[in-house]
Amino acid sequence: MPDRVKYLIDEQELPDSWYNIAADLPEPLPPVLNPATGEPIGPDDLAAIFPRNLIEQEVSTEREIEIPEPVREVYRQWRPTPLYRARRLERALDTPARIYYKYEGGSPTGSHKPNTSVAQAFFNKQAGIHKLTTETGAGQWGSSLAYAGALFDLEILVYMVKVSLRQKPYRGGLIQTFGANVIPSPSQTTESGRAILAEDPDCNGSLGIAISEAVEAAVKGDKTRYALGSVLNHVMLHQTVIGLEAMKQMELAGDDPDILIGCTGGGSNFAGLIFPFLGQQLRGGRTRRIIAVEPAACPTLTRGRYAYDYGDTSHLTPLLKMHTLGSRFMPPGFHTGGLRYHGMAPLVSHAVSLGLAEPVAKAQLACFEAGVLTARTEGITPAPEATHAIRAAIDEALRCKQEGRSETILFNFCGHGHFDMQAYMDYFAGNLKDHACSEEEIAMALAGLPGAG
Amino acid sequence: MPDRVKYLIDEQELPDSWYNIAADLPEPLPPVLNPATGEPIGPDDLAAIFPRNLIEQEVSTEREIEIPEPVREVYRQWRPTPLYRARRLERALDTPARIYYKYEGGSPTGSHKPNTSVAQAFFNKQAGIHKLTTETGAGQWGSSLAYAGALFDLEILVYMVKVSLRQKPYRGGLIQTFGANVIPSPSQTTESGRAILAEDPDCNGSLGIAISEAVEAAVKGDKTRYALGSVLNHVMLHQTVIGLEAMKQMELAGDDPDILIGCTGGGSNFAGLIFPFLGQQLRGGRTRRIIAVEPAACPTLTRGRYAYDYGDTSHLTPLLKMHTLGSRFMPPGFHTGGLRYHGMAPLVSHAVSLGLAEPVAKAQLACFEAGVLTARTEGITPAPEATHAIRAAIDEALRCKQEGRSETILFNFCGHGHFDMQAYMDYFAGNLKDHACSEEEIAMALAGLPGAG
Repeated sequence: MPDRVKYLIDEQELPDSWYNIAADLPEPLPPVLNPATGEPIGPDDLAAIFPRNLIEQEVSTEREIEIPEPVREVYRQWRPTPLYRARRLERALDTPARIYYKYEGGSPTGSHKPNTSVAQAFFNKQAGIHKLTTETGAGQWGSSLAYAGALFDLEILVYMVKVSLRQKPYRGGLIQTFGANVIPSPSQTTESGRAILAEDPDCNGSLGIAISEAVEAAVKGDKTRYALGSVLNHVMLHQTVIGLEAMKQMELAGDDPDILIGCTGGGSNFAGLIFPFLGQQLRGGRTRRIIAVEPAACPTLTRGRYAYDYGDTSHLTPLLKMHTLGSRFMPPGFHTGGLRYHGMAPLVSHAVSLGLAEPVAKAQLACFEAGVLTARTEGITPAPEATHAIRAAIDEALRCKQEGRSETILFNFCGHGHFDMQAYMDYFAGNLKDHACSEEEIAMALAGLPGAG
Repeated sequence: MPDRVKYLIDEQELPDSWYNIAADLPEPLPPVLNPATGEPIGPDDLAAIFPRNLIEQEVSTEREIEIPEPVREVYRQWRPTPLYRARRLERALDTPARIYYKYEGGSPTGSHKPNTSVAQAFFNKQAGIHKLTTETGAGQWGSSLAYAGALFDLEILVYMVKVSLRQKPYRGGLIQTFGANVIPSPSQTTESGRAILAEDPDCNGSLGIAISEAVEAAVKGDKTRYALGSVLNHVMLHQTVIGLEAMKQMELAGDDPDILIGCTGGGSNFAGLIFPFLGQQLRGGRTRRIIAVEPAACPTLTRGRYAYDYGDTSHLTPLLKMHTLGSRFMPPGFHTGGLRYHGMAPLVSHAVSLGLAEPVAKAQLACFEAGVLTARTEGITPAPEATHAIRAAIDEALRCKQEGRSETILFNFCGHGHFDMQAYMDYFAGNLKDHACSEEEIAMALAGLPGAG
């Protein structure tokens, strides 16, 4: 028998419940605040934006939250996802480390995002909602919500960051193919959009602006709510199917990760893989190294401030305690991947602030180099987002080689790059560059924090 | 328990051998002819183009040909592929038919092509070859051979039809990401290409021209051979893993197909699903309806002639007995999918000529309509090629509804459409049209057949 590379588990082993890390945190998550009063907000304050059942999940401290059967039924189309041993990558690196990856690119939209879009569509439908609004940057989330909307018969309206839609028209096409509407943001369809266009008619848009438009459209719409693809607690919750499956698969492989790695934009794919393992540790289990990898061009965890901030540019959201670069931070336009959000999931920020995870930042050229090596060894072309996790995994494997240590590394391969070939072509043509934010840029961005300056 | 939608088999059930239909044909396949002498050619005549081990497979009449372990090891990355029951599509059609599909889009390049590219790369490497040349139209095959070349350390040179590379630059980017070279065809790098450019400097290219260039480059190169992604017997052979797995999975589903459907360009995905079932029938098993679906704009099986013809435009290949529109047939440029080859796999042509399969032609707008319905029900956006098989499956399911019959339909879902979103966007924008070749176009094309006119 040859060396095994793929660890599958049967669909009977699809988790019955999501794992809620709020049950095991050594200190509770700081509350969400009402910006007008500075007081913690209650579930009622969120009812115009989210349905009750999702608000309950958002504030729950139950350890296990059941996955409804209709959601499991859809999950089964592509889940459990495979866990791979990256033997060819290991050979190319000549490392004694054992590298594993959980591969989420086999979903209908090519990333981990449907894990939560399907759940959110189900719960909104159950709550009698007819329409969902959302924003999308690189388009992974927008296409995933469009897919889920098609399955649960919900109208979907996606505000897509204008520059991203221009760079990735095909993600817009995919959203349309699933039957959803896509509007370039900033747009004339909302007050937030009109205000920004009045100031700057050529504005390229940002995730923060698109969130403002989507929230406004949800609040003003009939039987309409807003859906977010990352950042919030219930999104992290839904993504834990990744890590719950991976734990069983690592057992099947007869191995146990010393190092866990995920890339972080809003934090959901990182949390999805890592929280079930971290929960074990918090309940007295083994301590592992946990690495959160972000782009050097949008260094939220490594150079941002852990503070209360808005989730959007027009300040329509409550205040979240999170690592942030300020809600008006604009990542440089030439950075090709997603991972461009100014903030970070409060749960991920909390874990980092408690010293439970190490944040690192990687520059984009080194990430594309890692992506190309992965394509040529493992045969899968990674999304630019995923290349950040891969870069960190490779760097750890090379350290293992230098130190002569045979550590076990597990990373989340959160999506394929089939919609990102322009970025690879730009990389091959030498048209990409690295960007490390200057001290001045960071200071200016942080000056925009509420209460700052 | 809910209705089951996915039928997986364990990787231990990956077939040990490919199935060779030549062993069971009621009449042997007409021989390949040397165009100079009109005599059957022998293995020696092919040695400049293909390695010996693949030539042996090309002419073998052994029923089972072992899959080497290194090929099985690579297959296991994404195989066995899932077989799905299309319950949501059935509900949308309100049909009593049961629709199943074998899904090949989960491979590293998103189609069935790696089933043979991996095998061909392995056998060429084993034969001491250093470099492979090939052609590609829509790019599915070129990217698949590039992927296989990366795994087996072979240099890969891909001639890509110029108009396709312009329409689908990202398939070119994917080829490059796997480390292969891609040249727009016709090019100045070959005599064939130069001759065509001298006549028409703006020539858009065609598969036939690109084959000429790739064959020429192989024959003139050192330790270089040519690889073809369809048409030839050994390619059909490698694709039979699809049908061999599907047979086990239909058993697992406790069902048995009454109708088998595949789309046909060169014939390989059709043959891959269908030949193992057809072989059963030829050995005395059950007779099923077998439907080969081609585009109305390139109606090789339905309106071509079953005759000896060249495989390429410059007439560098031997003569193959096949359904053909003539080696200089140019399918209309606005037809967006692959499936544009003038000829057809001799084995598929032979089966059709013996009455073992029904050919049908489908127009492109109806195919895109079927593709959109599939995306919105099954959640997978099909490649334009695959929409032809889906259209036929839907039409059969609607017939079942009309007749009140509960038949079982199985089709090959040969690839996803993530690289084809421009075609979907053109469809939504109303920029696509149907094209049925006129009698004059067909007559003119057929006049180019050897010995004709």
